[in-house]
Amino acid sequence: MNGVPITGHTGLTCLLGSPVAHSVSPAMHNESFRYHGLDCVYLAFDVSPEEFETAVDGLIVMNARGWNCTMPHKRSMFERVDVKSQEAELIGAVNTVVQENGVLTGYNTDGKGYMRAVEDAGYDIIGKKMTILGTGGAAASIIAQAALDGVPEIDVIARKGHSWGETEKVVERVNAGTDCKICMYELADQVQMKKSIDDSAILVNASSVGMSPHEDSCLVPDQTFFHPELIVSDVIYNPRKTKLLRMAEDVGCNTFNGMYMLLYQGAYAFELWTGHEMPVGLVKEKYFS
Amino acid sequence: MNGVPITGHTGLTCLLGSPVAHSVSPAMHNESFRYHGLDCVYLAFDVSPEEFETAVDGLIVMNARGWNCTMPHKRSMFERVDVKSQEAELIGAVNTVVQENGVLTGYNTDGKGYMRAVEDAGYDIIGKKMTILGTGGAAASIIAQAALDGVPEIDVIARKGHSWGETEKVVERVNAGTDCKICMYELADQVQMKKSIDDSAILVNASSVGMSPHEDSCLVPDQTFFHPELIVSDVIYNPRKTKLLRMAEDVGCNTFNGMYMLLYQGAYAFELWTGHEMPVGLVKEKYFS
Repeated sequence: MNGVPITGHTGLTCLLGSPVAHSVSPAMHNESFRYHGLDCVYLAFDVSPEEFETAVDGLIVMNARGWNCTMPHKRSMFERVDVKSQEAELIGAVNTVVQENGVLTGYNTDGKGYMRAVEDAGYDIIGKKMTILGTGGAAASIIAQAALDGVPEIDVIARKGHSWGETEKVVERVNAGTDCKICMYELADQVQMKKSIDDSAILVNASSVGMSPHEDSCLVPDQTFFHPELIVSDVIYNPRKTKLLRMAEDVGCNTFNGMYMLLYQGAYAFELWTGHEMPVGLVKEKYFS
Repeated sequence: MNGVPITGHTGLTCLLGSPVAHSVSPAMHNESFRYHGLDCVYLAFDVSPEEFETAVDGLIVMNARGWNCTMPHKRSMFERVDVKSQEAELIGAVNTVVQENGVLTGYNTDGKGYMRAVEDAGYDIIGKKMTILGTGGAAASIIAQAALDGVPEIDVIARKGHSWGETEKVVERVNAGTDCKICMYELADQVQMKKSIDDSAILVNASSVGMSPHEDSCLVPDQTFFHPELIVSDVIYNPRKTKLLRMAEDVGCNTFNGMYMLLYQGAYAFELWTGHEMPVGLVKEKYFS
């Protein structure tokens, strides 16, 4: 059911976060280990910020092959790793660690997961403009990866809340380190929002607005903000269709939700740990349908 | 194959030791979790003495249900646990830990495993004399458990090597804390060896003498030391039949090796972690035959 029989050689991978009990990651990684006949398991550990360093120390002496970090540990993991990938440096957060002889290399596969989900939905946004709603971790990882992949212009529109300053630093680094031109605008400026979206090929909600149980919330005021060629996407997958996606569908826009971003961030992590491709067709069918 | 499908709720148990890669413990515990439909896995971590405390700290924050310790960590684990069972106190070593809200309770199921193996082989040694060859961890755990279970007299015969002093302390504690009368004799005194064995219902080799690749070694000089009613047992299971057991069989003694001691120490640990009985019939068939 969960990979080859567990023996004294079986390797450990895992998720560190809080909460983690309902994560789909154990299911998709264990399914993939089994598919390839790899002698490895993936567990989920609910670890508080106070326990975080102790857990990482433990994983190193237990010779864990690698792990994922989710809320609230992605920034602490960034501070802790010895080596950082290009996108992790830009984002300032790590969601995937590879451990080798005690040396920790940190990656961030969230943005790659989003970009692969765009492709998977059948779209090519390279060379085209993107508008992102929201600041915070998901926004940062999408900004950085889109810029690295060749999206030339990104407008970020958000409330000037507690994560604005963080995202501003990400934007500075990405503007300095890539050919992409990124501007940040306040959500209250609806004239600017209309202009940004009008010029964009794709709109992505990277905020938590619209997530269950607040399913009637949406950062876009009404359907006049959409044009028919706009691709509208959401990092949220619960509900499957946020109010944003429902509004966009109503006016004929193509849409997709955050499920495959979740799938593909895991697929990239799996490949980093094992050198094998995740059997995404199988994983989609069993855990994402 | 290894228990119910692994999810974000799946609990961790494990073995800490070095080496551990060839341990049968992951196989028997994972088989037993699967049998009972328990959402738990058992892994093996090769951890050095320098890494030991870090691994234990990590297991606590990962909320591991419990773990086994083997060489070289049984004494360090004894020092580390918060609460000790009666037999662990007597032995001065812990092979099984139960973790609850960060509180570690230490047990030693090795001696219980041996005593259950005696029963399993069809013998009743309660009220009868035992002779043990060897000092060290296995000897200590058998001495303490046999005394607790009602063996009234034990002679320990060994070289006065580096573990003699340790075992002497165990013998002092057991003599003081139980109704059993234990004496220690030097191996060189063969007249005493003959006398001890002559008076005993059961002889157990708890030393490593006779273990592969030294299969031609035996602490008992020759077959004149055995009487026909003597039960002769060995904690060694590689080879399945040590020279001691072969010699004893030749003169018609009943014998058994250390395999079921290993099985039953695990069965007791499993019950401490889960409250369920290990399916020993199934485990014997799949991993001990």
